[in-house]
Amino acid sequence: MGERARTYAVIGTGAVGGFYGARLVEAGCEVHFLLHSDFEHVRHNGLRVESPLGDTTLVEGEFAGGFHGAASSLPACDFVLVALKTTQNHLLGELLPPAVMDGAMVVMLQNGLGVEAEAAAIVGGGCVIGGMCFLCSNKVGPGHIRHLDYGLITLADYGPGGIGRGATEPMRFIAEDFGRAAIPISLEEDLLSSRWKKLVWNIPFNGLSVVLDATTDELMASEETRALAAALIDEVVMGATACGATVPSGYASQMVKSTGAMKPYLTSMKLDADAGRPLEIDAMYARPLRAAAAAGVKLPLIEMLYRQLAFIDARSGARSSSASNASSGR
Amino acid sequence: MGERARTYAVIGTGAVGGFYGARLVEAGCEVHFLLHSDFEHVRHNGLRVESPLGDTTLVEGEFAGGFHGAASSLPACDFVLVALKTTQNHLLGELLPPAVMDGAMVVMLQNGLGVEAEAAAIVGGGCVIGGMCFLCSNKVGPGHIRHLDYGLITLADYGPGGIGRGATEPMRFIAEDFGRAAIPISLEEDLLSSRWKKLVWNIPFNGLSVVLDATTDELMASEETRALAAALIDEVVMGATACGATVPSGYASQMVKSTGAMKPYLTSMKLDADAGRPLEIDAMYARPLRAAAAAGVKLPLIEMLYRQLAFIDARSGARSSSASNASSGR
Repeated sequence: MGERARTYAVIGTGAVGGFYGARLVEAGCEVHFLLHSDFEHVRHNGLRVESPLGDTTLVEGEFAGGFHGAASSLPACDFVLVALKTTQNHLLGELLPPAVMDGAMVVMLQNGLGVEAEAAAIVGGGCVIGGMCFLCSNKVGPGHIRHLDYGLITLADYGPGGIGRGATEPMRFIAEDFGRAAIPISLEEDLLSSRWKKLVWNIPFNGLSVVLDATTDELMASEETRALAAALIDEVVMGATACGATVPSGYASQMVKSTGAMKPYLTSMKLDADAGRPLEIDAMYARPLRAAAAAGVKLPLIEMLYRQLAFIDARSGARSSSASNASSGR
Repeated sequence: MGERARTYAVIGTGAVGGFYGARLVEAGCEVHFLLHSDFEHVRHNGLRVESPLGDTTLVEGEFAGGFHGAASSLPACDFVLVALKTTQNHLLGELLPPAVMDGAMVVMLQNGLGVEAEAAAIVGGGCVIGGMCFLCSNKVGPGHIRHLDYGLITLADYGPGGIGRGATEPMRFIAEDFGRAAIPISLEEDLLSSRWKKLVWNIPFNGLSVVLDATTDELMASEETRALAAALIDEVVMGATACGATVPSGYASQMVKSTGAMKPYLTSMKLDADAGRPLEIDAMYARPLRAAAAAGVKLPLIEMLYRQLAFIDARSGARSSSASNASSGR
């Protein structure tokens, strides 16, 4: 598949999938977008993506690929990018098979732990790659994505039985395609460590932003919440270590430092909470807590944050999120 | 002072001071109420107290005692009930001396730890009694108190150098006066244990109600917040034990059980937060944390809750609370 333009399916055309899919169109790839609630709007008005990398509106019939209102109409593709919220992963059994018919590689552009195993249960572990997105992007209206900053994707192979095979050829193809569209790709050997490293940021800042109704800069400006974020990060690193993941010693403080330098930003979970969408607390909190507990380590502060989020999530009641509602990659 | 009607000053005529002061008027005592923002209103319209024990409106000149707009006009009294929010305790040096001129006993009807020591620094330890109020009462408007339920006050002597002298004669006089007005008084030997026992309820439910914007019944209805409250209570008991206080083994679970049976209720700290008043986080959280730390015990969940509250408190910005703004005893 190195000779012709590679084909991609994007499952979940929101802030993450819409942005990255549009970059792949820019790179000359054939891209098929699966939409749910925005399908009719996008079919008639196009998919609008604003970005410091350039604004674009993708119009049906004017780019290689197209928009799809149902998974069953997706063609078999080389790569399937899953950019759903993890709260929608119960739909994977229905959404993945059409696009992966001829053995596509599935790239899980999601947050949290264990999402590759969910895909592997459907398509087999040899066809799954983990993707950690470091991205500020929002869906600001139907079929309307606003990319604010960053964009790096870290890829790591899941592998048969969950044993990664290092930087594989499919991963290098993805890096090549995104590279043509100015999206940096980092190829990693160790998926588990990459997932836990992402949690170093996600666990403190997503949760605290929801519980305290705060932006990242407000959390960083207060001595109390800086100290609390640091204590939560210490627990993430403890959990990672217990589970056999490696977080380099300077990593956490570097993440916090770069957060302090970020523009005021609403985390993806805060955007979900504000929109009344279900929160990704299972993948982002419950699974890391269970993994750490299975390795014999308690993470009491993370558990407290999880319980607070679970209370808020249950209360919000709004339980109808759609495949196109994904909101932000971070 | 057992021969004539005893005289009381009430410093802080809000949900707590207004209610208990009105009961003492009912009991035939002479009661002098200190007000701040509500003084003019109450002088013209009276102090209105609604209660299952009977509704009353106290009108200047129609009861023994009166309303005062400044501490300097308070007469010397037998007892001074301090029902300010602890966030106002920096005013004690100005407010206490007039009323305690002839050696009155000061009763600290406040939440948290260390409030008796604050009064003792002004009037001497031999003149200070701790008072723990178990009370649902709100100030619903200027000079308008609504008592909902409960009313028990637990009294314990602070004593010279903080060494209590058991159930003293002044404590028995207070019990006698309140007893005539259907307010039960429990006389305790051990102030420190009584204070920590009150924290068993205050620390989880006040803090969580603010952070999660929730009523007590919402917190009790969710498995997650019930478990979190239980974990916080475990830490309160650890802190209490480390500090030499005694919390009987069944006490915590009994408190939680009775909370489950309570009517939906906004905690005093939630009322403060909703009204933009400063939160009593120093007396209720920071001091217990410091006391436990000094005794060699860390209470990480309580510290996390404290940091969340400190963030919320600092953000709220409204920093002008008045002596008459006390809101609820629990």
